[in-house]
Amino acid sequence: MEKKISEKVINRLTLYHCILADYINADIEFISSKQIAMLLKIDDSQVRKDINLLNNSGKCRVGYIVKELKRSIEAALSFSKTKKAFIIGAGNLGMALAKYDNFTNYGLNILALFDNDKKKIGGTVNHKMILDISKLPNLARKSSVDIAILTVPREFAQQTADFLVKANIKYIWNFAPAVLDVPDDVQVWNENLMGNFLQFTYNI
Amino acid sequence: MEKKISEKVINRLTLYHCILADYINADIEFISSKQIAMLLKIDDSQVRKDINLLNNSGKCRVGYIVKELKRSIEAALSFSKTKKAFIIGAGNLGMALAKYDNFTNYGLNILALFDNDKKKIGGTVNHKMILDISKLPNLARKSSVDIAILTVPREFAQQTADFLVKANIKYIWNFAPAVLDVPDDVQVWNENLMGNFLQFTYNI
Repeated sequence: MEKKISEKVINRLTLYHCILADYINADIEFISSKQIAMLLKIDDSQVRKDINLLNNSGKCRVGYIVKELKRSIEAALSFSKTKKAFIIGAGNLGMALAKYDNFTNYGLNILALFDNDKKKIGGTVNHKMILDISKLPNLARKSSVDIAILTVPREFAQQTADFLVKANIKYIWNFAPAVLDVPDDVQVWNENLMGNFLQFTYNI
Repeated sequence: MEKKISEKVINRLTLYHCILADYINADIEFISSKQIAMLLKIDDSQVRKDINLLNNSGKCRVGYIVKELKRSIEAALSFSKTKKAFIIGAGNLGMALAKYDNFTNYGLNILALFDNDKKKIGGTVNHKMILDISKLPNLARKSSVDIAILTVPREFAQQTADFLVKANIKYIWNFAPAVLDVPDDVQVWNENLMGNFLQFTYNI
């Protein structure tokens, strides 16, 4: 029986997953909790505790079997369950996220980008169309997309969120440095870059 | 006496700060913990507890004085202490971060971008030069920059980190989806986007 996995653990497991992908690329078969711990500068008892939450059978004397452990993480975090999303805002950040091929490995399928800039509409980024934002409500319904990745400038963030809520979007991954006012049935994840930077540099 | 502020609190305080900036733009003078709590869908006792950690005197019957509270957060998180940084990688993500004017309000001063693409070198983004990566060690020393924002593709992340470490960079804000192997005196903050997405969508 798997326990409910906490947010902090999910975050660490995706970092372990990154390391495992590198090990596979380098044709390394085994990894120890100590090796993972050293790379992330955390305690190896923490690594072992996290891995114990998984249904992972690939443990042996020399460590974990890299491929097995990677698969166990993918199963626990259901990478195979594809989640469809739209990117709202085809600026640099939206483009960068659209080009981030890694996302598909984690079950995030970005179907298209939306913008209101006539010069951008009709273009493509990484085989994804840039579409007129006015087409979003219809396409969201037809493709049953309820996740939006919001990368518009701060000053347009709230009005765009209002528009997305009307289009029945239920999850907004917000990259704009603005706190969005949305109804209770809509979830927002604030990618609070400045907050992260300040946490990181607080002690400098 | 201020207590040491935890990472989670720093993160929430920057979100409160965002809300306060919006209130100032809208010419609103007072804000209650309830209003903040409702926007962030958290408990208002949490908001009050966080604010109690600040040296904030701007409290009155109708709530907090917006400008005072904003200043108290800025003081507690030392926004006025400017931190100089370089962006490594002038791709879409590097460009997006270079254009993010909000950073300066939080004390992050991005001096320049670096790349190895001859077509990009010599250009500017948001008044910041794109320079040849080979110039970084010298410029980092001269301008005493020890923070690097790493936005190169995954496959170049480790070798670029090695280069930065040799150039005496001590803090790497890592946007590449890779875990970096660096010496103990170098700190890495992994902007683990996929981890964040999976945390956000875990229950969908």
